[in-house]
Amino acid sequence: MLVVMQSNATEEQVRAVCQRIEALGFRPHPIPGAGRTAIGITGNSGAVDTSSLESMPGVVECIPVSKPYKLVGRDIKEENTIVRVPTPSGEVTFGGKAVAVVAGPCAIETREQAFTIAERIRASGTRLFRGGAYKPRTSPYTFQGLGEEGLRILADIREKFGLGIVTEAIDNDSLDLVERYADVIQIGARNMQNFSLLKRAGHTRKAVLLKRGMSATLDEFLMAAEYVMSEGNYQVILCERGVRTFADHTRNTLDLSVIPAVQRLSHLPIVVDPSHGTGRRNKVLPLSRAAVAAGADGLLVEVHHDPAHALSDGPQSILPEEFDQLVREVRAIAAVLGRTLN
Amino acid sequence: MLVVMQSNATEEQVRAVCQRIEALGFRPHPIPGAGRTAIGITGNSGAVDTSSLESMPGVVECIPVSKPYKLVGRDIKEENTIVRVPTPSGEVTFGGKAVAVVAGPCAIETREQAFTIAERIRASGTRLFRGGAYKPRTSPYTFQGLGEEGLRILADIREKFGLGIVTEAIDNDSLDLVERYADVIQIGARNMQNFSLLKRAGHTRKAVLLKRGMSATLDEFLMAAEYVMSEGNYQVILCERGVRTFADHTRNTLDLSVIPAVQRLSHLPIVVDPSHGTGRRNKVLPLSRAAVAAGADGLLVEVHHDPAHALSDGPQSILPEEFDQLVREVRAIAAVLGRTLN
Amino acid sequence: MLVVMQSNATEEQVRAVCQRIEALGFRPHPIPGAGRTAIGITGNSGAVDTSSLESMPGVVECIPVSKPYKLVGRDIKEENTIVRVPTPSGEVTFGGKAVAVVAGPCAIETREQAFTIAERIRASGTRLFRGGAYKPRTSPYTFQGLGEEGLRILADIREKFGLGIVTEAIDNDSLDLVERYADVIQIGARNMQNFSLLKRAGHTRKAVLLKRGMSATLDEFLMAAEYVMSEGNYQVILCERGVRTFADHTRNTLDLSVIPAVQRLSHLPIVVDPSHGTGRRNKVLPLSRAAVAAGADGLLVEVHHDPAHALSDGPQSILPEEFDQLVREVRAIAAVLGRTLN
Amino acid sequence: MLVVMQSNATEEQVRAVCQRIEALGFRPHPIPGAGRTAIGITGNSGAVDTSSLESMPGVVECIPVSKPYKLVGRDIKEENTIVRVPTPSGEVTFGGKAVAVVAGPCAIETREQAFTIAERIRASGTRLFRGGAYKPRTSPYTFQGLGEEGLRILADIREKFGLGIVTEAIDNDSLDLVERYADVIQIGARNMQNFSLLKRAGHTRKAVLLKRGMSATLDEFLMAAEYVMSEGNYQVILCERGVRTFADHTRNTLDLSVIPAVQRLSHLPIVVDPSHGTGRRNKVLPLSRAAVAAGADGLLVEVHHDPAHALSDGPQSILPEEFDQLVREVRAIAAVLGRTLN
Repeated sequence: MLVVMQSNATEEQVRAVCQRIEALGFRPHPIPGAGRTAIGITGNSGAVDTSSLESMPGVVECIPVSKPYKLVGRDIKEENTIVRVPTPSGEVTFGGKAVAVVAGPCAIETREQAFTIAERIRASGTRLFRGGAYKPRTSPYTFQGLGEEGLRILADIREKFGLGIVTEAIDNDSLDLVERYADVIQIGARNMQNFSLLKRAGHTRKAVLLKRGMSATLDEFLMAAEYVMSEGNYQVILCERGVRTFADHTRNTLDLSVIPAVQRLSHLPIVVDPSHGTGRRNKVLPLSRAAVAAGADGLLVEVHHDPAHALSDGPQSILPEEFDQLVREVRAIAAVLGRTLN
Repeated sequence: MLVVMQSNATEEQVRAVCQRIEALGFRPHPIPGAGRTAIGITGNSGAVDTSSLESMPGVVECIPVSKPYKLVGRDIKEENTIVRVPTPSGEVTFGGKAVAVVAGPCAIETREQAFTIAERIRASGTRLFRGGAYKPRTSPYTFQGLGEEGLRILADIREKFGLGIVTEAIDNDSLDLVERYADVIQIGARNMQNFSLLKRAGHTRKAVLLKRGMSATLDEFLMAAEYVMSEGNYQVILCERGVRTFADHTRNTLDLSVIPAVQRLSHLPIVVDPSHGTGRRNKVLPLSRAAVAAGADGLLVEVHHDPAHALSDGPQSILPEEFDQLVREVRAIAAVLGRTLN
Repeated sequence: MLVVMQSNATEEQVRAVCQRIEALGFRPHPIPGAGRTAIGITGNSGAVDTSSLESMPGVVECIPVSKPYKLVGRDIKEENTIVRVPTPSGEVTFGGKAVAVVAGPCAIETREQAFTIAERIRASGTRLFRGGAYKPRTSPYTFQGLGEEGLRILADIREKFGLGIVTEAIDNDSLDLVERYADVIQIGARNMQNFSLLKRAGHTRKAVLLKRGMSATLDEFLMAAEYVMSEGNYQVILCERGVRTFADHTRNTLDLSVIPAVQRLSHLPIVVDPSHGTGRRNKVLPLSRAAVAAGADGLLVEVHHDPAHALSDGPQSILPEEFDQLVREVRAIAAVLGRTLN
Repeated sequence: MLVVMQSNATEEQVRAVCQRIEALGFRPHPIPGAGRTAIGITGNSGAVDTSSLESMPGVVECIPVSKPYKLVGRDIKEENTIVRVPTPSGEVTFGGKAVAVVAGPCAIETREQAFTIAERIRASGTRLFRGGAYKPRTSPYTFQGLGEEGLRILADIREKFGLGIVTEAIDNDSLDLVERYADVIQIGARNMQNFSLLKRAGHTRKAVLLKRGMSATLDEFLMAAEYVMSEGNYQVILCERGVRTFADHTRNTLDLSVIPAVQRLSHLPIVVDPSHGTGRRNKVLPLSRAAVAAGADGLLVEVHHDPAHALSDGPQSILPEEFDQLVREVRAIAAVLGRTLN
């Protein structure tokens, strides 16, 4: 259910409607737009008796939202959400005119490894660094990440190189820690429907980068974002990272059509991870160009200076010099679409 | 790595080898077999220097295990694992001669609903009751289960009807509670690679019923079980519940070929959930018969006396009288394979 | 569009309605049922003006058929179609009480190979022999079948062993020949949407065994059968042979849920090919049992006395002694469902 | 098997080797390269005794080709194949520096419809027109194309607008006709493994545009091209048109990663059909940009001036003015990659 306010409704009127919604036992989500404010109502499993709301001052109408998602949809918010991530080198935005690039190794392995790569990333003009301290691995016997020690290395990288930090939380405990160190909290594909973790991420004030599950439909993907938003965190960045199909020439099948599909239904920014999306170094550049050409709001790229010895995902990590080329190429593609590089 | 002991090795010798393995910084998993004891070694990311082990008394050989899984594989344990679940009406086994049936509603909705169904289930001779108190739902706005109140209803059903309880944990917090009330802890498909939860489940002493993820390969499925076992809980029941494909005549595509595939590679029991596997009431009976005919060690079936008003999964729940027919039919099929019904 | 006739409508009345339909520029398909005759109308892309039909003697009503298929659907024909295949050892039926078994090698390689296998097949009581003379192969450089020489060997097997012959046609030219030699004409999965071939198969008077395409939805599968029937051949046997998914423990994923799904929508018989459906010898027996338990009207099984040297599909062919066991097991399963073995 | 000739081998030496290969009962395929000529040998199911070839003048070595494909692979021909299509407005190339655009309606419906669209297509600078005279349709009751009448309209479009013609053949009979009228013969996705048709296409001297099957792996796709080439027609253009997955926000899932994957293994050009690949008008532009950004050698786009009344594929056809925008945008993207538009 969506309460649409008049374009000249006062803050007080909006607040009053919110209070009434709460009094009815539901949760209000005021969402200011360019022209009007809309108030989403969640917490209702069925119909809401809207008569008491429609008669309140400043209310235009109450419209039922037929889609299963509410807060993620364009119905409630027509303009793009711009997620703003502060970094020591200035704000990076997702969903605005600029295309954001996030780069770094799959996992933080050692301080030296991470610093080597961070230096190269920063030199390319990139301002967001990715690197896992907690790694969800198929086998319990493989490298699971450095944990908080990895987060401390990331904090040092933040300070030394001026890079904002994007890193993954894999459960509520690690999220408590990641929240403290990171600028963007990543939720991985395998956890896209870990609803407990999504709700917990909804309570943080940091931006959340949510990866699409390996076999998630678009609706399920958006509903996962809805879980985060329904708890009050509206800073969600969606991330396509390939889906599982019969095709065997890539590790996953990167579904770039989801970019315009998301943009039609949702106001949230959508970025692409061509590294996991293909699993092959030689496909990262062409698919990065393609993602930006299709309208992606950003890229998440794995870079390693010595992929042969990487503790995870070596075969899909590109070299720093390849990353430099990637930045040059996607900047030129972005320009064709009237966009810049963050 | 696997240490194979002589068939006449003493318990003391086995213990000594385990201590040496621990002294090397690894974790020993002694697995007694009909003819011999084998000791799995986990915690090693690479090769283990086995020279000091091979020279110990009672040791036949140390063999590297090429498969990514160790504890779940037939290499370490040739005979089937029989998971024994105590119920007030006697022990139910998974993986032995008898085929186990678990039945009940998708979710515990009310005490009355649960009791009505439990009575019918018990009357059919079934001794394990399923019902969710914590429901992982695609939408944050739909019924999420009664939580601990639901667990208390399940405890009362246990007492009143003599039924063992199978119910799902969705995160570490709910697992703490579920562990207290349930006889079998279910891990759902969406959590099959929630490694944090799998590890936590490895610390309980209750049997774990692990559902295959929607797009999990067989190796990933077995590795998820490995996570549980690597923490010391060897009572794992695998559950096929359909995978996601292009096919649209069923909610998921039930992959019965995974039954013989699991049985070839692993000693763990494998059961089938034809309710989620098809998502259609009229397909539950034929696919239940097919699952048992293919060699499944059990069935997990959703039953509801009033599916039209079920709060979740109504369209795939069968009626109690259909369940009676199911029990009759799968008993006859099981007999063809020389098996009984639990 | 479907014209439903009165239960006591005369043949003459039916004929008159058919003539009127033809006069309107469409094609009539009279389909006699147990209680009534229905007349399907095809050739209309949109609505048919039915006023002139509804007023004719013997007509009950004209009902629009909303499903894209007409002749394959239960709307037009409620009772199961029983496809009757004459063999020198008596009629074999598909879709009746008996479950039909078809067995033989993937390809006819030599007269000696084919005879060796045929003798073993016949000894098991089976009356239908399969073997390819025309093989659709992924590579142009692998064995493509013996062509008409293979058909002649099949004709000799028919005569010597009293076996009916099921063999594949891969294009219009081979269909002309296959029609002459075979009792059942097989259309392979790769040709399920070779509409030109389907139409040609619709002009033969031999039964057609139509395999589901590798990624065909149920509707597409039924529409392919509709192509054959729309040309006047109503003797169509559907065959599930596995679909393509991400799963890698079998060559294809056998979708047994399609059996009850077909039976609900269509009156046509449905059989299962567990050999292509799994691609693994050790899975053919369990999945054959499962197929019959799910309600399949028959099985299509690859048998080879020397699979290691088979020119195609060796890894999925079972040995003659395994086939004997299969026949015993599926006969027992069929009995549970009140069915016999053909 | 591949015979590599010396860089200074004479034509006579090449011819002599070819004759020897024929004398051995195989088929030679001399493929001149920039630096050397290689001669592929097909028709051998197993090993070729190469001793007599290796000792011939001009021969460097005989190397076994491990991949299942031979003629399509980079092993036999390192440089890109440039397929040259003559049109009344000049030659259009596939696989060279220029990106080729092919546009037109799904089906030729009427002369007026086809002319209206052709005029708009030509005005945008495009020189290749697509339009189906033979339509493979899921249902036998929907518009199947105008047949030869459609081909005659295409011939008139060729003459009147100077457009080269790309149109589909669906069986051997239609191919005989299409060959006469078209500049490029299209083989549709459903016929990708209609091996009889592929062989027939191998005998024509017109270029063949081969669409990837709905669930074809890369190897199967390349092997289908190998069928055409093994019969002597080397002018093959591959076309990605989306594969079938669980995703439901598009009709198919466009797999752009296949572009760099093809380019790594094969010398053949690869184009993309974003219209079938997405099935949604609003996704054709972004995915067209993405395809060219990923390195595609061309685009195949459905354009209709009145999609609401199109007899087929209306929902995925773009309007002529959208096509103008598409041409502008992909030209700019192509320029970033140092390419032009054909």
